[in-house]
Amino acid sequence: MLRCMSVEALVLAAGRGTRMGGDLPKAFVELAGAPLIEHAVLALAAAPSVRRIVPVIPREDFERFASLDLARRGALGGRLAAPVAGGAERQDSMRCGLAALGGDVELVAVHDAARPLVRADAVERVIAAARSHGAAILATPVTDTIKRVRGGAVVETPLRSECWAAQTPQVFAPDVLREGVEKAVANGRVASDDAQLVEWIGVRVSVVEGSPDNLKITHPADLIVAERQLAARAARGTGGPP
Amino acid sequence: MLRCMSVEALVLAAGRGTRMGGDLPKAFVELAGAPLIEHAVLALAAAPSVRRIVPVIPREDFERFASLDLARRGALGGRLAAPVAGGAERQDSMRCGLAALGGDVELVAVHDAARPLVRADAVERVIAAARSHGAAILATPVTDTIKRVRGGAVVETPLRSECWAAQTPQVFAPDVLREGVEKAVANGRVASDDAQLVEWIGVRVSVVEGSPDNLKITHPADLIVAERQLAARAARGTGGPP
Repeated sequence: MLRCMSVEALVLAAGRGTRMGGDLPKAFVELAGAPLIEHAVLALAAAPSVRRIVPVIPREDFERFASLDLARRGALGGRLAAPVAGGAERQDSMRCGLAALGGDVELVAVHDAARPLVRADAVERVIAAARSHGAAILATPVTDTIKRVRGGAVVETPLRSECWAAQTPQVFAPDVLREGVEKAVANGRVASDDAQLVEWIGVRVSVVEGSPDNLKITHPADLIVAERQLAARAARGTGGPP
Repeated sequence: MLRCMSVEALVLAAGRGTRMGGDLPKAFVELAGAPLIEHAVLALAAAPSVRRIVPVIPREDFERFASLDLARRGALGGRLAAPVAGGAERQDSMRCGLAALGGDVELVAVHDAARPLVRADAVERVIAAARSHGAAILATPVTDTIKRVRGGAVVETPLRSECWAAQTPQVFAPDVLREGVEKAVANGRVASDDAQLVEWIGVRVSVVEGSPDNLKITHPADLIVAERQLAARAARGTGGPP
């Protein structure tokens, strides 16, 4: 069990959610009666290896976060940490989050607040892969054909069987992620996702197959799909809305 | 108007749709009371430039196709051609379809039967681009970070702004597509999509931004999203179920 005690999670809630069509920050958009960030935190908390969960949110949302049932009721036996203020770019938020981790943390699992449906078994599998390999992400095979496009024309069609869509959690040794973030900031590079920060410093990132269930809420239509999934899970008795 | 008279469409309905969870071939799965292929045919027929539509379907589905309202009622003023039997691979079906085109065809628009919601304006835009450039596809910018994965690890993270998800219709000069298909078959190569067939022979493929609406029905959840879209269109008076 000792090995299970040194994983902490950062839940990043930076997006303004303009594609969701409302004024609410995306992390606070409701899904089946609870905001996305509450789902995301509870989903991580369902993974026994996750010792502590640190929300990284814009400072102006602190009050909103404090009013959540989750935060008010001191849920999760103290595993939910006080929120940390994020920065302008995702990698700025990452630095703030990394600074808030415990000193003995073996692995950090970085998760999007906009992915409310990740399952505990997937979280455990990607953590296990990161324990073995130092860095691991969840991803799913892409069903569309991906084209690389420049100047309005196709320049390459990567082999479809090699194309995967990255999900979160993405799990890293904290020092590796710190080094990746610092180098990216120093070089003025903005990564597509957190894994790219460590890819840039030459770290091998393992890929663990996730489920399409673990969708990222981007458009209002995604909420409809997510609601159906939660209802189906509740009907099967495999976890419903919080 | 003369220029509008030489575009024909192939509607390819090859998939067995095992991910849809039923026994029905995917093209005949119902969406809002009509099979996907009927939606797809009507969607193409709504584009004035499309002179004739040739369904390419497995021979065992001919009877099922003949029983559709669409086929029975001789709809579309004769623009719907008799179905052509497809082959084992998509490019085999493509050869069969190409053989069924009229001799004076200037452009062929290849469309998936599993994309029931494409809008006439998008069809016209991709046809116009193919008229100018010889080959064009609809595609949408990808919101996920794409990873190229080999041996269970990330080998590359392509720049996200360069990654687009290909859709259909994909529109080509028939001779170019014929050459692409024949070379691929001769070389034993199977393309990810039709555009790749012509990319392989060095043809520049233009990319026209489509809409996420034009989704490909792959999983049962996609049907739910598609139904909502049709209902929203019907409410707005911009085209509902056939």
